[in-house]
Amino acid sequence: MSKNKLASSVQSLQSSAIRELLKHSKMPGVISLGGGIPNPDLFDHEGLQIAADAVLSRHFGEAFQYGLSEGYPELRSAIGQICAERGIACQADDVVITSGSQQSLDILARALINPGDTVVVESPTYLAALQVFSLAQANLESVGTDGEGMKVDELEALVSRKTIKAVYIVPTFGNPGGVTLSENRRKQLVELSKRYDFVIIEDDPYSEINYTSDVFRPLMAHAKAIGNEENVVYTSTFSKILAPGTRVGWLVVPEWLKRAVVNLKQTTDLHTSTLSQLMTFEYLQTGRLAGQIALIRDAYRQKYQTFATELENELGDVLTFHKPKGGMFLWAKFNNGLNTTEWLAKTLANGVVFVPGEFFYCSNPDHSTLRMSFVTATDEQLKEAVRRLKISL
Amino acid sequence: MSKNKLASSVQSLQSSAIRELLKHSKMPGVISLGGGIPNPDLFDHEGLQIAADAVLSRHFGEAFQYGLSEGYPELRSAIGQICAERGIACQADDVVITSGSQQSLDILARALINPGDTVVVESPTYLAALQVFSLAQANLESVGTDGEGMKVDELEALVSRKTIKAVYIVPTFGNPGGVTLSENRRKQLVELSKRYDFVIIEDDPYSEINYTSDVFRPLMAHAKAIGNEENVVYTSTFSKILAPGTRVGWLVVPEWLKRAVVNLKQTTDLHTSTLSQLMTFEYLQTGRLAGQIALIRDAYRQKYQTFATELENELGDVLTFHKPKGGMFLWAKFNNGLNTTEWLAKTLANGVVFVPGEFFYCSNPDHSTLRMSFVTATDEQLKEAVRRLKISL
Repeated sequence: MSKNKLASSVQSLQSSAIRELLKHSKMPGVISLGGGIPNPDLFDHEGLQIAADAVLSRHFGEAFQYGLSEGYPELRSAIGQICAERGIACQADDVVITSGSQQSLDILARALINPGDTVVVESPTYLAALQVFSLAQANLESVGTDGEGMKVDELEALVSRKTIKAVYIVPTFGNPGGVTLSENRRKQLVELSKRYDFVIIEDDPYSEINYTSDVFRPLMAHAKAIGNEENVVYTSTFSKILAPGTRVGWLVVPEWLKRAVVNLKQTTDLHTSTLSQLMTFEYLQTGRLAGQIALIRDAYRQKYQTFATELENELGDVLTFHKPKGGMFLWAKFNNGLNTTEWLAKTLANGVVFVPGEFFYCSNPDHSTLRMSFVTATDEQLKEAVRRLKISL
Repeated sequence: MSKNKLASSVQSLQSSAIRELLKHSKMPGVISLGGGIPNPDLFDHEGLQIAADAVLSRHFGEAFQYGLSEGYPELRSAIGQICAERGIACQADDVVITSGSQQSLDILARALINPGDTVVVESPTYLAALQVFSLAQANLESVGTDGEGMKVDELEALVSRKTIKAVYIVPTFGNPGGVTLSENRRKQLVELSKRYDFVIIEDDPYSEINYTSDVFRPLMAHAKAIGNEENVVYTSTFSKILAPGTRVGWLVVPEWLKRAVVNLKQTTDLHTSTLSQLMTFEYLQTGRLAGQIALIRDAYRQKYQTFATELENELGDVLTFHKPKGGMFLWAKFNNGLNTTEWLAKTLANGVVFVPGEFFYCSNPDHSTLRMSFVTATDEQLKEAVRRLKISL
């Protein structure tokens, strides 16, 4: 009876498919390729313990007190250095600490999107970004991807005929597609943004998990090279390189957007957990992050190789995929027209879950696609998972 | 040049007056009556250290991993018990963990408010609530308060001539007014809500900081007694009774609102810092919360008495105030028409800051009011602060 009291924007929010999958993936004996979660066995217990001791002994009062909405100043400086190492020249003052990438996106959507504004996403794209932009009542349009990432030519055709507010993109080791935008297309994209004056929301959670020796310069760096840095907002997170449970991410925002973002951060939750921020700061002070990233990268690459090899050997005749150069996901497509959402019930019965691809599209879903995460399973489980997928066909 | 890209709702967000005041209050030698922050000298160092040790030894993997959007299940149960002790019968399943009361309010505003919906607040009311409802583009109306809290008769006159979506109220030891809604008016309010079918957003951060032996039953309990619990949403927090820096608060929501609130929580930031949640949970396991609350209550009451006595003695001829029965704030009014916003420059020059009252009104501000927090200053500083206020007249 009281449902008519809900705001209209909320009523369009879909219940989360991932929630249901997470339930399944915790059933005993089920091997999950479904989650987007990092491998907790790789968390740096010793380093986090050192950080916790430092927080409680050196920062006790401030760790438990209110803090500034833009974030803990020394953590903002440390993040500025991380950004610099990634090729982004920025000051501590350009960094706003958020409670993870999800919040970064939500704040950006609220700062930028009026109902009906067009936001262009990759097809497929990150599920939770679709939720955020839908909640902001954006008009979502999508552009296809191939082995070189977003088809920027398609984007150009779109922006030449209609005004868009923003492009949302995970340019490096994307989720769910696993693809990486090529250097040429990066240049093309920032030039388009300059010419047509739209904002690029560059979501970069995975770039440190690089399986290759290639360097992929952030869009923000490319934009700066052509004097278009005003149009790029960059977001990243410690979730995949340190730990997601502390919920610490960040935004690098151009000057014109800064006040709005900080005000929204304040209105949203005052500030990110000071305890989480100080834990992150003290962890960075240990100097262990680089080693931790190398550990994660090596472990994930090795799992990827095991998994990809097994998939090719066992399912190569029906399943095709682009080989990711990094990250946590393998995106594949059945060439026999199999509907993966329907198929999931069968694979679950055989003890393996994944995320059906259709949830990652804002329109025209390809029902024969699926996303598989290979980072939490052991090598043996990955091989067994492929065997279970095969017997489910 | 890019400012026209900001969403229209954001452009109306005022920059925060509190932000500026916090800067002033950190100037050397300045005594701050301005902040709404708890006294960090009272934080339970030993108890939080025990909790931290327990988290790192018992919950290492889960403390740093992703969690459920509704919150850590055992913390939800423990909060259910805290609510029960306050007179609210609820299940763990009715509790949603948030990153503090600010986020509770933001999520509720997004769940409930369509642009133009009317939300009624007390006059004066909590500044940050005004920001949240303004961002949701609510039509804000206010109802006056006196020594018994919100004038519910005025509210009745209002709701009998126009439809409202919700009433936002801090019924116990309110911020900024320090007033407490009387038992009779509590009954009247929940009956009005039933008759006119509007939602009551009951914000309860302070009720444990009770200077008296009186018991003030939550509106949610009163509503249940008349079968109107569907119309009350309750929010509270650990910020004032344990520590604000962890950012852990909660909502108790009726069934019809639950799915929307959890989906919004997920879309907003996935979930509250697992580390913060587990720290809170393990702190509760120590059994020290009741003692900690007693400590805070006694310390604040004693400071209040010192401050109120000094104010009456030194400024009683020009300043009047209702005596709060608990909480952290003393709200006062000059009876000589002094404009407190203009006066602040003078008191700052003399080394004392407060928050001018005008910021706590959504319309028709009373410029001769001010909010003073007495909980972080020492007794000597409180006396000195009054002396400095006096010489500023």
